[in-house]
Formats: sequence, structure tokens, C-alpha cells
Amino acid sequence: MLENNSTGSDELELIPNLTLDCVIFGFHDNSLKILLLKWKGTDLWSLPGGVIRLAESLDEAAIRILKERTGLDKIFLRQFHTFGKVQRYDKEEIQQQLTHIIDPKLWYKRAISIGYYALVDYEEVFPNPDQLSDECRWWDLAEMPKLLFDHEEILEKAHHALRLELSFQPIGLNLLPEKFTMPDMMRMYEAILGKKIDPRNFQKKILNSGIVIKLKEVKKGVAHKSPFLYKFQKKRYEEVLKEGGLFFI
Amino acid sequence: MLENNSTGSDELELIPNLTLDCVIFGFHDNSLKILLLKWKGTDLWSLPGGVIRLAESLDEAAIRILKERTGLDKIFLRQFHTFGKVQRYDKEEIQQQLTHIIDPKLWYKRAISIGYYALVDYEEVFPNPDQLSDECRWWDLAEMPKLLFDHEEILEKAHHALRLELSFQPIGLNLLPEKFTMPDMMRMYEAILGKKIDPRNFQKKILNSGIVIKLKEVKKGVAHKSPFLYKFQKKRYEEVLKEGGLFFI
Repeated sequence: MLENNSTGSDELELIPNLTLDCVIFGFHDNSLKILLLKWKGTDLWSLPGGVIRLAESLDEAAIRILKERTGLDKIFLRQFHTFGKVQRYDKEEIQQQLTHIIDPKLWYKRAISIGYYALVDYEEVFPNPDQLSDECRWWDLAEMPKLLFDHEEILEKAHHALRLELSFQPIGLNLLPEKFTMPDMMRMYEAILGKKIDPRNFQKKILNSGIVIKLKEVKKGVAHKSPFLYKFQKKRYEEVLKEGGLFFI
Repeated sequence: MLENNSTGSDELELIPNLTLDCVIFGFHDNSLKILLLKWKGTDLWSLPGGVIRLAESLDEAAIRILKERTGLDKIFLRQFHTFGKVQRYDKEEIQQQLTHIIDPKLWYKRAISIGYYALVDYEEVFPNPDQLSDECRWWDLAEMPKLLFDHEEILEKAHHALRLELSFQPIGLNLLPEKFTMPDMMRMYEAILGKKIDPRNFQKKILNSGIVIKLKEVKKGVAHKSPFLYKFQKKRYEEVLKEGGLFFI
């Protein structure tokens, strides 16, 4: 949402009117989490976002912005929607709230934002805020603060895209550790789809699809009977996807 | 892909570097069709596309561009992906091919294109080419000409999005006339999904989902036994969508 404040280098020349926002999903303690940034010196939260350079693709921009703003690297990112209403939010109000961080002259007259969502293994990432932010932390989807801009709408659309794509594609694996139990996987699906799943039916469908392999190991340190561990069978997942057959939860 | 050649009116001011392309699907004679434009004085075909104004939303731009370039109006349009590689195609080659229609100075240094797909009732639309084109006509998906720009990639991605969304959402109804037979509906699904469907299983799933209503009428003028007509039950379709349960072909 910022105007070009580059030093004149072609490498840093920006595409005017275009921004990019990332919705970062993690899964922990049986619930879906979102990574948010708190703007410096305020109590205002938003999704990590940024501007796009003329010399980079949209996918490259998403990777760079996510790294610069949160420290996250090498994660699963997917474009899901472009937000292009004429008035996406009350620009003047937001300019005033952030005037101590961003020069009001730098805001675009209009900003169209490309939305990406990211899926990360919660236990493997260590988010860090950038210089515009005081804090970068996970929020439970059920206990989110109010978000700046139209970021609540962006988040909702990302969640919707995730729900649709999850039933068809091997994307869920990005939210789980390498090895997981059947209940872990089921709870991840439940957290995203927002509904209870019948455990027997779920297990049957997942096993019939061939997308996971049962390991000989069991999960240790759990109170009751030790459950078997599974891992994703990526090749089979891709075949299922290609056949167009896919499975459905 | 054109620079601003407006008369200076704010209403017509363009968003630089941003374009929009439409993939228009129709269903006829048991196959999926695509609407293409042939550039004036050439044998070059492409999807209908255009530039975006600062004063209009992306959805409004899609409606306007489709109407200006093909004459189509009031049809189902959905954004599916934004194409943002740095080099989407060989710009110099295309500038040369179209130099008699478009001043090479008017091309954007880089163009990012928002992709929309449209679903239309083939028998209800009467496409018309605009002043940049000699022809505007339907092509069978299986017999497409080579397309300009990166439009083959855009088409492929639109087809992929359509296949995914069709299994979840009431979008198929836009491709069928108001009343249709079960075989009509099945062949529409087969044409889009690109595979044979088991008729009994299909009929059972569709009827169980409650998304269509069987009418008392039969289809006349068909050679063998007159099949019953059905129509979509939009309200139920929306409920199914909301429940997240949905059906799966």
C-alpha cells in the first residue's frame, strides 16, 4: 500500500497500485492458527503484506515479502484471490492511525491486493517481526483481534479456499509434522473444515485413497494406547490429483 | 496490455501494468466450447481481454471488457487466478504481429493479468467481435487453434479451476438450459471433467443431494424413450454449499 520510495534503482522499481497480502495458517493444539503482525507503537493487527517490484514475479514477491516481514522462509505458498474493490477500506482513517510509521504521501491512490495463503508446520517455524512491527505472533482462529484494512475479508476468503482445496489436494501435509497419527490428521481436517468428522469413515477413505502410509512406529508419550504413526505418500497423492478422482472428506 | 490512451478524463484513467483476460466456456453437442477472438487482418486468436480503470472494481472491469469485446452481457463470471510472471510471453514478437492494430508505444512495460472465467448457456448468447477483431466464435476445446500471449496457460488454469469448483458449487447450472435431462447434465460433467461417469452412481448422487427437481414434463423430439426433464433447485444448492458437505462426482 506504499508508493515507490526506492532509490531509483531499476531492481527496486515498484508496480504501482499493486500489493500482496499473506494469510499464514498453522495447526497446533487441535486448532487452526493465523500469524499476525502488530504495527509499531499501536494495538493494531494485520496480515503481513507488502508491495511488488517490476522485476519480480508475483510468486517471488510473496516469498520475499513473507521473509522480510515475518522471517519465514521455504514454506508452502499459494495464490488464492485478488482483491480489487475500488474502496477496500477507509484509507484516510488508516493513514491517520499509521502516520507515525508511514508517510501519508506514500500511500497508493488505489491498491489492488494479490492474496496468498501459506501452510506451515507450526512447530518448525520461528516468526520474527520486521521494523514496521512490534510483534509477530500466532492467533487462534476462534480468538482473533480486529484486523486493519479489509484483512478480515481476505482471511475469510483464504479460509474458504483452503477448505475447498484441502479435500482435493495434498496440501494438508504442509500443516502436519512428517509423522503423525490418524487422530492428528483427522483433527487437522476438523479444524479447517470447521465440523466434526466420523472417525471410521475418515480412516477408511484416507487409507483407501493410498495417500498415507502406515509406519511400524507408534507415537510415544501419549496417555492411553499408543497410536500408530503415518506419513504422506506424496507420489500417490499427486497421482490421485491427476486422475481427477481424488478423495472427499 | 495497452497504455493509457484516455482523453484525460479521470473516469477513464487506467491502472498501469494491469490487464484482465476472460475464458468463456459454453456447452454444446456434448462438448465444452471456448469463445475466442481473431485479431483484425491476421489469423491470430486469443482470449478476450482488456485494461482496467482506476474507477472500477475488478469485477466491474470483467463485465465491461467482456461486453465491449464480445457483446456478451449478464453472464456468470468468476475470478480464478492472477498471472504474474515477469516475462509472460515474447512481447516484441507480439508487438510486431499486431503493429497494424496497436501502436507499439502503447504496450505496458510489464502486464499482470487477472483471469476470470465465464459460464454461459451456449444457445442463449450471440457473440459479436469488437473493432480490434475480425471474428468472435466458439471453438471446441479439443480442436483449439494456437493462442497468442500466454493464453493457452490461462485457459488451462481456468479449466482446472472449473473442474475443481464444479464438484463443490452450483456453477454447472450456468452451462445448461433452464430445463434439462439427467443425460444432458451427466454429459456436461463428463465434458468438463474429461472422463466417463457411471450413470447410475451419478443419478443417485445428484438426486440424493437434492440440488435438482424432477419435473412432470418429458423432453420431446428425441429418437428413443422420452427422458424426464429436471431443473436446478438453487436454494438447496446454496444450503449444500454452506454446510460444507457438498457432493462429489
